[in-house]
Amino acid sequence: MVTIKDIAVKLGIAVSTVSKGLNGASDISEELRQMIIDTAIEMGYRSKKMKKEEHKKLCIFIENMEYDDSDQFGYEIILGFKKSALRDNWEVSLLPASSELQSQEKYDTYLLKHGFSGAFLLGFSLEDEWMHHLKKTKMPTVLLDNQISRNSNVCYIGTDNQEGIELAIEHLYKLGHRRIAFLNGSPNSMVTDQRHQAYLDSMAHHKLEVTRDLFAFGYYVSDCAKYHVPDFLAAGATAILCGSDLIAQGVIKECRARGFRVPEDISVVGCDDIPLAQKLDPPLTTIRQDREALGMCAYISLISLNKNVSVSKTLLRPKLIKRDSTAKCTPYQVTDELLQEARKLHKGKILGRGLE
Amino acid sequence: MVTIKDIAVKLGIAVSTVSKGLNGASDISEELRQMIIDTAIEMGYRSKKMKKEEHKKLCIFIENMEYDDSDQFGYEIILGFKKSALRDNWEVSLLPASSELQSQEKYDTYLLKHGFSGAFLLGFSLEDEWMHHLKKTKMPTVLLDNQISRNSNVCYIGTDNQEGIELAIEHLYKLGHRRIAFLNGSPNSMVTDQRHQAYLDSMAHHKLEVTRDLFAFGYYVSDCAKYHVPDFLAAGATAILCGSDLIAQGVIKECRARGFRVPEDISVVGCDDIPLAQKLDPPLTTIRQDREALGMCAYISLISLNKNVSVSKTLLRPKLIKRDSTAKCTPYQVTDELLQEARKLHKGKILGRGLE
Repeated sequence: MVTIKDIAVKLGIAVSTVSKGLNGASDISEELRQMIIDTAIEMGYRSKKMKKEEHKKLCIFIENMEYDDSDQFGYEIILGFKKSALRDNWEVSLLPASSELQSQEKYDTYLLKHGFSGAFLLGFSLEDEWMHHLKKTKMPTVLLDNQISRNSNVCYIGTDNQEGIELAIEHLYKLGHRRIAFLNGSPNSMVTDQRHQAYLDSMAHHKLEVTRDLFAFGYYVSDCAKYHVPDFLAAGATAILCGSDLIAQGVIKECRARGFRVPEDISVVGCDDIPLAQKLDPPLTTIRQDREALGMCAYISLISLNKNVSVSKTLLRPKLIKRDSTAKCTPYQVTDELLQEARKLHKGKILGRGLE
Repeated sequence: MVTIKDIAVKLGIAVSTVSKGLNGASDISEELRQMIIDTAIEMGYRSKKMKKEEHKKLCIFIENMEYDDSDQFGYEIILGFKKSALRDNWEVSLLPASSELQSQEKYDTYLLKHGFSGAFLLGFSLEDEWMHHLKKTKMPTVLLDNQISRNSNVCYIGTDNQEGIELAIEHLYKLGHRRIAFLNGSPNSMVTDQRHQAYLDSMAHHKLEVTRDLFAFGYYVSDCAKYHVPDFLAAGATAILCGSDLIAQGVIKECRARGFRVPEDISVVGCDDIPLAQKLDPPLTTIRQDREALGMCAYISLISLNKNVSVSKTLLRPKLIKRDSTAKCTPYQVTDELLQEARKLHKGKILGRGLE
């Protein structure tokens, strides 16, 4: 059991100074206060206040993810988490984790200072500063769609991307599609990598050829479709699998702009099944992520970590939701016009073309 | 909501006959009874009795795994499961799943007939008949160390084998070992495959050569060591990683029988950390699986499936427990005697040599 005295001895300062640092007194320097708190945390110190609150407060940190209304990806995840947590009498705070906040305060320090027993992180990317802190965090932490190796305080939660992509490719294969393109999400993310590998494996499984003009890495916005659809059409793709429903929305628009009908000429498959998917014209076939269940399981995993059960990974099943954006394959003639547009695209900026 | 009448219509028999079949009346044939029950299950029928008991009974099926006393692998897993389940007022039955039972009755039929809401399966191998039933089961099922793809009623639970092997190889590498052998468990199991791949990846990561005489597939018993240790010694291995603590026990014995001391000449690492590991001479360095937590998480996953939350996979962190069976590397001269013994082994039966 670490005491204030232990911290004082370690830092070579007076017990009263440590006490001031931990209680936020204003007559010591901010640097010293920070050092005291960091040391206290490293040594595993918990104040009475922290202990008392330890079983009461959890935090959801969100970054680069929309969650305000029910149409947005994060909404139901947060709902699922909160529902489960509140049932067990936890108080849940939802906080945006701006890069300012992340650079101002260490992850563990922030949680301990505010009396949180653990946190669920959504939308973080490898560039986020706190992602580095997670390698050594002592706080129970559940991370959506990202994995931290070797730290038993952090659990990865997500949907089984491999199975999702397999289901989509199999569905398209059964409809007769052989030239299947994949407009993936942002590069440099674990999910994107997993899905890319699953696409390659699944195509190989069905003995379908993957040429370089059949896949690309975009961003999670509709607009990215315009940089890639010309390539796919010039490559004779009859089906386009997309890294999100928003990307699929853009893909449908770009296909139409070039005179291709969906699904009569081109089949399109999304990922996620956000509420938008069924409202699209045509309603979108997509790989569903059960977002409320993700939130619920994130809570369960966090509580397990809190009880020293080192859950490393919790994956949920994806589900293929068949709607009207996919249909039997009708191959088409690749016209000179399509080829020229694709060539022109390559001559210009390679905006958003991602990994080459 | 499926009724008895629906079943009767589907089978083209009288409602009273269906009722007899479901209630185990003796005046209809066993074949007809079986057909009625199977149809009822396929159609998703639940009798009042089943519904009433639905939230009360869970089952643990165990096969090919020792669990009777605290020294055995299955003991704490079952303990962890039962503890969690009993806290929530579930009744838990522990049943051996003999191959007779498996061939007598379909998996779903068995569970429904006995009023179980779900089951946790331990020790099943790909050859077990019920493993085929699991591909289509409608019953919430958690499977230790095995994965069923595409069925959202089945969840895989286990320890992250990749991280475990990585931790062990890194530990040995830091001690100066370069010739690291791996005596894996039984071939044709998912865990064995995962660990083999992790061994290859981890050796490559450290730029260590893997020659064919450095790895082998055995069985989960001490005795299998004698078929492989001569090879490893003839290959100049200074460290031997083992697929279980029992295998490690055998490896230590076989090294000693050839004049090699553990850990002075050969370092040995086990897997699991069953209670035996710390009682061995020397106490065994091993990759711990937190078995009680596995049981607890199996229960949590089963309850999630029961609530239609399709958990696909739950993995726990392994932990490297450093004891006295590993030490700094001391390379040795491979003698003619060692080479001859290994050669002799190959001339004889290739008992237990596994995948070639």
